[in-house]
Amino acid sequence: MPSVDSKDWKSAADAKREAFKKQVDSYAYALPKVDSSTLDVSTISLDGVMDPKHVQITNMEVGELVEKLQKGELKAVEVAKAFCHRAAIAHSLVNCLTEVYFDRAIKHAEELDEEFKEGGPVGPLHGFPISLKNQICVEGVESNMGYVGWIGRVPKKNSVLADCLVRSGAVLYCQTNIPQNLMSTECINAIYGRTVNGFNRNLSCGGSSGGEGALVGLRGSLLGFGSDIGGSIRVPSSFNGLYGLHGGADNSCQGLEAVSSVLGPLTTSVEGLQIVTKAVLAAEPWRKDPFVHYQPWRESVYQLEAHGGGKEKLCFAFAYSNGLVKPNPPYYRAMDMTRKALETQGHKVIDWSFPEPEKCFDILSRVYGADSGEDIETECGRSGEPRMYGLCPPENPPRISVYQYWQLCYERRLFMATQIEAWEATESQTGTGRPVDAVIMPTSPYPSFRHDDQQDVSYTGVCNLNDWPTAVFPVTRVDPSVDKQQPAHTFHSDYPFDKINYERYDPEVFKNAPIGLQCIMRRGEDEAVIRVVEMVDAALKAQKKA
Amino acid sequence: MPSVDSKDWKSAADAKREAFKKQVDSYAYALPKVDSSTLDVSTISLDGVMDPKHVQITNMEVGELVEKLQKGELKAVEVAKAFCHRAAIAHSLVNCLTEVYFDRAIKHAEELDEEFKEGGPVGPLHGFPISLKNQICVEGVESNMGYVGWIGRVPKKNSVLADCLVRSGAVLYCQTNIPQNLMSTECINAIYGRTVNGFNRNLSCGGSSGGEGALVGLRGSLLGFGSDIGGSIRVPSSFNGLYGLHGGADNSCQGLEAVSSVLGPLTTSVEGLQIVTKAVLAAEPWRKDPFVHYQPWRESVYQLEAHGGGKEKLCFAFAYSNGLVKPNPPYYRAMDMTRKALETQGHKVIDWSFPEPEKCFDILSRVYGADSGEDIETECGRSGEPRMYGLCPPENPPRISVYQYWQLCYERRLFMATQIEAWEATESQTGTGRPVDAVIMPTSPYPSFRHDDQQDVSYTGVCNLNDWPTAVFPVTRVDPSVDKQQPAHTFHSDYPFDKINYERYDPEVFKNAPIGLQCIMRRGEDEAVIRVVEMVDAALKAQKKA
Repeated sequence: MPSVDSKDWKSAADAKREAFKKQVDSYAYALPKVDSSTLDVSTISLDGVMDPKHVQITNMEVGELVEKLQKGELKAVEVAKAFCHRAAIAHSLVNCLTEVYFDRAIKHAEELDEEFKEGGPVGPLHGFPISLKNQICVEGVESNMGYVGWIGRVPKKNSVLADCLVRSGAVLYCQTNIPQNLMSTECINAIYGRTVNGFNRNLSCGGSSGGEGALVGLRGSLLGFGSDIGGSIRVPSSFNGLYGLHGGADNSCQGLEAVSSVLGPLTTSVEGLQIVTKAVLAAEPWRKDPFVHYQPWRESVYQLEAHGGGKEKLCFAFAYSNGLVKPNPPYYRAMDMTRKALETQGHKVIDWSFPEPEKCFDILSRVYGADSGEDIETECGRSGEPRMYGLCPPENPPRISVYQYWQLCYERRLFMATQIEAWEATESQTGTGRPVDAVIMPTSPYPSFRHDDQQDVSYTGVCNLNDWPTAVFPVTRVDPSVDKQQPAHTFHSDYPFDKINYERYDPEVFKNAPIGLQCIMRRGEDEAVIRVVEMVDAALKAQKKA
Repeated sequence: MPSVDSKDWKSAADAKREAFKKQVDSYAYALPKVDSSTLDVSTISLDGVMDPKHVQITNMEVGELVEKLQKGELKAVEVAKAFCHRAAIAHSLVNCLTEVYFDRAIKHAEELDEEFKEGGPVGPLHGFPISLKNQICVEGVESNMGYVGWIGRVPKKNSVLADCLVRSGAVLYCQTNIPQNLMSTECINAIYGRTVNGFNRNLSCGGSSGGEGALVGLRGSLLGFGSDIGGSIRVPSSFNGLYGLHGGADNSCQGLEAVSSVLGPLTTSVEGLQIVTKAVLAAEPWRKDPFVHYQPWRESVYQLEAHGGGKEKLCFAFAYSNGLVKPNPPYYRAMDMTRKALETQGHKVIDWSFPEPEKCFDILSRVYGADSGEDIETECGRSGEPRMYGLCPPENPPRISVYQYWQLCYERRLFMATQIEAWEATESQTGTGRPVDAVIMPTSPYPSFRHDDQQDVSYTGVCNLNDWPTAVFPVTRVDPSVDKQQPAHTFHSDYPFDKINYERYDPEVFKNAPIGLQCIMRRGEDEAVIRVVEMVDAALKAQKKA
C-alpha cells in the first residue's frame, strides 16, 4: 500500500488502482464480452455468464426480494452471491466500484441464514444486499474518498448508517465511485478513473453518487446509499433511470452545515424508498449520530395527514423550467406524460415555479465556495494530485471572514423565508384550501452530459438550499424520433448556461438516456414525499397500461 | 429620534432612554415607594398601589389564568390592564423593560373580548399576556437589540413567534432588556442601563434574557419568551425562581448556525411550558420560519413512550458538579432535596456526569469566538459605543478561515458523538434496560453574581453544544443559616474559575437568591423534557408537603 504522504501521487494512484483490479479479478467471475463501441450495456445478454437463478434474483423488484428473504423463500447467501457477481459484471462495463468485500459479504449472509433457522429474520432488511458510496465508512474497508492522499485510510468502525443497515439485517458488499471532492455531478477521480453511464457509455453517469447510480442502474445492486448536497443522489438517480431520495433523516459528516450533505437511497423500485427509510429509522440512528433528529417513522405524515389524509385529490405545481435554464425537449415530454397521468387520476395541476432562481443560485454558489477552495486544496495537497475540473469554479472565490460567512448563512435564511412565503401564497390558485401539495420539476436541464462537459445543479440545488425533501422518479428515455431539437428560445441574459444547454442538445448523442423528474415537498415532509412519489409512479404506470 | 448613524453615541442613548422613560411615565401608573436599600422587592406590599382585583389576577398560576380566559370568567381587557400595571411596577423596581405598548395591548384585549362574545376564545392563549425579549420583533415596536446604532429600527412585520402567539390569542404588551451583543449572562447595555435581580437587587438578574427573567420573577408577566445560545433562558430562569425551556422548536435568526440560538419561554408555573409550546406548535410556525422543523406536538413523546411510557419508574443521573467548577453550597442542598423527592416517588438516581467537560467548553468557546469579535465590533462601530465586558473575551481570538471554521464545526460534531456514546453507556448502571432517562444538574455554579463580576456558562453551555432540550425548575433560595461556605476543595488545575467561584461565595451576599436546577434530555426529546420537569416539580411539591 503506498504511503499516504507520498509526493509521487501518480504511482500511488496507479498502485492502488492496480491492487484493486487484482482484488476484483481474484474473484474470477465470468464477465460478458462487450465491444467498447456498444453504448447501451443495460440490456446485454447474461446467458452463459451468470447462473440463470442469479439473473432472476437480480432482476426482482426490491419489495419482492425483501419479502422472499423475510419468508425464507430465498437464502441470504444465494442472494449475496447473485449480487456480488452482477456487481462485478456492472463494474466491468462502467467502472463503478472502488472496494469489494464479496467474501466477507457471503460469509455474513451465511451467518444470517444460520440465525434465520433459529429465530427468523434478523431485521426488516434480512439478507438484502446494499451497496454504499465510497464516502460511507464500513469497518475494515478502505474509504479514501477518491483522494490519493487518503489511500490506506481504513475506518476502525462502521458509520452510523452502515451500522443501522447491518442491524436491520442488510448485507454490505461493495463501495462505489465518486468524483474528486464530491462537489461535482461527474464521477471521476485520480485513483479509480471515470465511471460511465450504462445506458449510453458516451455519457456521464452523474454524480457525486455516480458509481452508485451506475451500479444500481445495471442492477449490480437494487438499492444503494449516496449523499446529496446539491443533487448528488438525485442527478445519478435521474441519469440511470432510478428512484432516489434526498431527505432530512440522515446527515453525513461535514463541517459545511449551512447547506448540509444528506444521506439517502438510490433504487430500482419505488417501494425501496419506503422500505429502507423505515428500516433505518427503526434502528434508531439518533442514538448514535448527533445530527439525526429523534424522529421515528411518522405514519401520519406518510398518510398525508396535512394534505387531505389521502382521501382528497392533491394539487401539484408543474415547474417545466426553473427560470434560469430551459430544459431540453425530453423533459417537456416527461413532464407532459406525468401531468396527464396525474390529471387522469383526478389530481389538479397548476403551472408554477419558485421565484428568484437567480438569487437562489447566487447564494448557493457562495455557500459552496465560502472556503475559497481551501478544502480541496488541502486534500489535494496531501499527495500533490492536481485539482480536477468540476463544479468548483476554476478560480477560487475571494476569501471571506467567518463573520461574513455568518452573514451569508443569514442571507440564505431570509431567502428561505421568502420561498416559504411564495409557496404558501399558491393557496389562492389550488382550489384545495391548501398551498400546492408538491412541486414536479426536471432533475436537470439535460438528460446527461458528455464526459467533461459543463454541469449545472440549479434544478437540484434549490432543494438543498431550502432543505426540501425531494424524490426522483424515472419517466422515460431520450427517443430521437420524438425528442427533436426545438427552435431557439430567448436565452436568459445573465445565465449563460441557458444558451449553452440549448446549443449542445442533440437527441442522437443523448439517445436512450433516462429522464427522471423530481417531486419536491416542504421541509420535514420526508415521509410524505415518499408517499406522493408512490402515487405519481402508480399514476404513470396506470397511464402506460391504458 | 436620534439618527442611526449618529457618532455621538452618548447623547443618542440618553435621548432614547429619556424618551422611553417619558413613555412609561405617561401611563401614570401608581408605583410602590421602595427604599433603594431594600434588596428583596419580590414581596413588597401592593396595597393601595394596585387594584386588589389586578393583584389577584397577576398572582394566579398560568394554567388557572388561561382557563379563566378560555371560559370567559375573566375578560381579556381586565387581565391586560392588570399586567400592564404590574409590569410598570416591576420596571420601577428592577429596570427590566425596553419598550411598552400598553395602549395597543389593551385595545387588542378589547377586540378579543368582542370576538369572544361572537365565537368564544380566539385560540389556546386567548387574552393571555406575553412579554418578549427586545430581540423578538413585533410590528411597529422598536427593536434595537440594546445597540445605540440600532435606535430607530422598527420592524414592519411580526417575527414568526410573535405572529404565532397573536394567532393563538395572546396579548403582547412589552419588551424586555438584554445585554449588549446578547453573548452575556449579565443584563446591561448603553441605552437602557442595567436590570437587577428582584430577589436581591445587589445581584444580577442573569442574561441574556435578563429583563424577561426579572419581569416574570416579579410577576409583571407570567410568561415571556427569551432566547438561549449558551444559557440565556436558563440562567435568568434560575436566578429569578422560574421555569424555563431551552428546546429545539423555535430558532431565532442568526448566521451562527453551528450552535444555534433557540427561542423559549420563561414562566412562573410549570404548566406554562406545556401550554405555550402546544399553542405555538398549533400555529404551525414551520409554515413561516424555514428553520422550524415540521413537527406538530408529539403526545407520544410527551407521554414518555421511549422511557417506559410513564408506567415505569425513571432513572436520573445527578451531576452535582460538571467537573470544571464546583457549585456553591446551595446547589448541593437543592440537588439533595430533588434527589430525595425523586427517590421518594420510587425513581432511581445514579451519580454521573458528562465526560470531557474541558473539551466541551473549549469547543464551545471557539465556536462563539469564531468571528474574532467582528460581529460586536461591527455593531458597536455603527454608533461608536464602547464594547462592554461580558462573555466575549477582552481580546479577540485570532481570525480563522471559513475552512477552519468548518473543521471546528466538524470537531464539535465528533465530540457530540462521544457524548451520545457516553450517555448510551449508562445503560449498564440504570437497571431500567435504558440509558439514563434524564440528567439533573445545577444551572450555574453560583446562585447569581455581583454586578459586573465574572461569569461562567459551562453548566448551561454543554446543552447548547450538544443540542439537548433542557428545562429549568426552581428548588429553593439561598439561606445563610444552612448554606454555609465549605472547606476548600482541590481546585481544578486548568480552569481558574473553580477557585474564583469558591472564594467569592458568601451566603450573606447571595441571601434569598433563587436556586434552579436543569433537567436535561436527549436531542429531539422536547416534549419529554416538559413532562419530566412536571414530574420532578410534582415530586418536589409532594416532598415539601410531607
